[in-house]
Amino acid sequence: MHANSSPATQQVRIDLGERSYPINIAAGLLGDPATYQNLPAASTALVVTNAVVAPLYADALRNALQPHYKRVLLVVLPDGEVHKDWPTLQLIFDALLENGCDRKTVLFALGGGVVGDMTGFAAACYMRGVPFVQVPTTLLAQVDSSVGGKTAINHPLGKNMVGAFYQPERVICDLDVLQSLPSRELSAGLAEIIKYGPIADMGFFGWIEDNIGALLARDPAALAHAIRRSCEIKAHVVGQDERENGLRAILNFGHTFGHAIESGLGYGRWLHGEGVGCGMVMAARLSQRLGLVDDAFVERLRALIQRAGLPVTGPRLSPEDSAGRYLALMRVDKKAEAGEIKFVVIAAPGSAMVRSAPDALVREVIDASCD
Amino acid sequence: MHANSSPATQQVRIDLGERSYPINIAAGLLGDPATYQNLPAASTALVVTNAVVAPLYADALRNALQPHYKRVLLVVLPDGEVHKDWPTLQLIFDALLENGCDRKTVLFALGGGVVGDMTGFAAACYMRGVPFVQVPTTLLAQVDSSVGGKTAINHPLGKNMVGAFYQPERVICDLDVLQSLPSRELSAGLAEIIKYGPIADMGFFGWIEDNIGALLARDPAALAHAIRRSCEIKAHVVGQDERENGLRAILNFGHTFGHAIESGLGYGRWLHGEGVGCGMVMAARLSQRLGLVDDAFVERLRALIQRAGLPVTGPRLSPEDSAGRYLALMRVDKKAEAGEIKFVVIAAPGSAMVRSAPDALVREVIDASCD
Repeated sequence: MHANSSPATQQVRIDLGERSYPINIAAGLLGDPATYQNLPAASTALVVTNAVVAPLYADALRNALQPHYKRVLLVVLPDGEVHKDWPTLQLIFDALLENGCDRKTVLFALGGGVVGDMTGFAAACYMRGVPFVQVPTTLLAQVDSSVGGKTAINHPLGKNMVGAFYQPERVICDLDVLQSLPSRELSAGLAEIIKYGPIADMGFFGWIEDNIGALLARDPAALAHAIRRSCEIKAHVVGQDERENGLRAILNFGHTFGHAIESGLGYGRWLHGEGVGCGMVMAARLSQRLGLVDDAFVERLRALIQRAGLPVTGPRLSPEDSAGRYLALMRVDKKAEAGEIKFVVIAAPGSAMVRSAPDALVREVIDASCD
Repeated sequence: MHANSSPATQQVRIDLGERSYPINIAAGLLGDPATYQNLPAASTALVVTNAVVAPLYADALRNALQPHYKRVLLVVLPDGEVHKDWPTLQLIFDALLENGCDRKTVLFALGGGVVGDMTGFAAACYMRGVPFVQVPTTLLAQVDSSVGGKTAINHPLGKNMVGAFYQPERVICDLDVLQSLPSRELSAGLAEIIKYGPIADMGFFGWIEDNIGALLARDPAALAHAIRRSCEIKAHVVGQDERENGLRAILNFGHTFGHAIESGLGYGRWLHGEGVGCGMVMAARLSQRLGLVDDAFVERLRALIQRAGLPVTGPRLSPEDSAGRYLALMRVDKKAEAGEIKFVVIAAPGSAMVRSAPDALVREVIDASCD
């Protein structure tokens, strides 16, 4: 993995052998036909988006694709995590088959993480695999779902339970789309960016501390650097463990607690990034109780998460035994093995590891971290 | 790819780098616990089968798996191609999630091609991929779906349109299960075996001609040789083109015409192998009209297909313009590109290639091959 800088476009190259691809980062990419040059040849493109994003960007993307394809089709999915399911996925397959799309058809995912995950999974499955391009329109999707090839839909009994590892041809991170992002979603994206500090790079963490004001003010240069560095770190980890057999699990720092919050409150109450933000405080506190890091480190992380506009105190998930409810929810996490919860903890600032922990200690951490 | 022989078990090794696996061929394998040694460690196995196969073999397989797993679960799907769809696939995910199955759970596909394709696709998607083992119970599944990693379900607008390339850990071909197979299904399996002669190995074709009586009489030694040689040839082709970008298409010899017959009559009227048998006669005749092979070759192939108990004359698919209907159906085939039909033809006996052909010539072939 290496990075090129130019005044115009920054690029992170994801090296996965024959499934390698670039992430291009700059303002104004989405509506520029040059952005989509040299993709696999095809007669048809299908843009997949949702009802919120379509009015903002669908025309601009379709116009930019027109010079490259005979047909540019559009599918508009209903918005929201609640529609990340099979009936909605089927809308994509219906559009492909009703229009006689062959196995060279290129899919374009225009939207946030849900659209990206669903479009990627549809591309993985349609005729056993067609090419797709990610055009993420949230900060979270630009730093997170654009690297790693994870695609999925939800099952009534679990989130992201049905999916595939499948890599895009290219990821287009247009900085302009971040200007109109609601601030709660901007903060949610910052949670995943902050994450890369404690697990991999405390130098980057210091840079975020120094530039959190510029990031919240949506300064394009600051956002471009944060996106690029996050993608570089994630790419470095994923490149060593594409199918999540080991190292890659450290990317889930904060997610085990965070998923419990999201699931316990009902999906959609907290944004994913908000759960991760608060979950990182809990996971750091667990690391401290395990004797791995000191109080000062936990406080430093907590302070930055709070400055980023994210919650740092967890909700009670049950009137009687809130910690017990957290534990029960964490035991059904995909990372759990035979009912044992695997926590991502900070081994030392800038370095993470996966381990289990005694229930009593986890209860202490939850009780200390909740209202 | 290489083969080992022993009096007990014959083995074909499918070499696909880290996704390599063995096909074991012998009588009595299904119910023997030793068959399932050294699979990836897991606490739970899930056997997926259908309502026809379950009463015959589910108990034997579950008993053989008991020594290796804490839990051996069972899902019984409704039988038939018409159930190769999402709601039926969902039954597998439901069982996995209701039983809290983690990402180490091993799936066992016990049945014919439909069960194998669905179980394989469920394994490919559950938590983005869990291990699975094929235990095919038809001759067709033993020679065909056990090699190549193709998994899929049907979409209302097309067969096998939603799926994945995903390799099993092991394939278990028990010759005993073939003794109770209906003779129409035995013949359907022989169609795919015969196919390997004209596309790859005329020596094997001669062996089949000499042994067609033994094969129809279900002689275990003859069946073992036919299965092994078919798997070897298929493995050799797939090993060079795992994701079907080129050479692998030759394995579809007879399938373009055959799929049109299956689809035109309504799926289930003709067995897949019956469509392929008749389709090979048509594709051979097309090869002859293109000047690639002579009349004697077409007649030799037709005669063997007929001796195997397979149809060699196609059905009329429309009272007015039967050939036109064949052409329309073939244009929506997955192999078609921008509406141009790609035919697998015999370049010379023992060697195949993919090419298009003038509609007028294809019409001649269809008219000459139908009632």
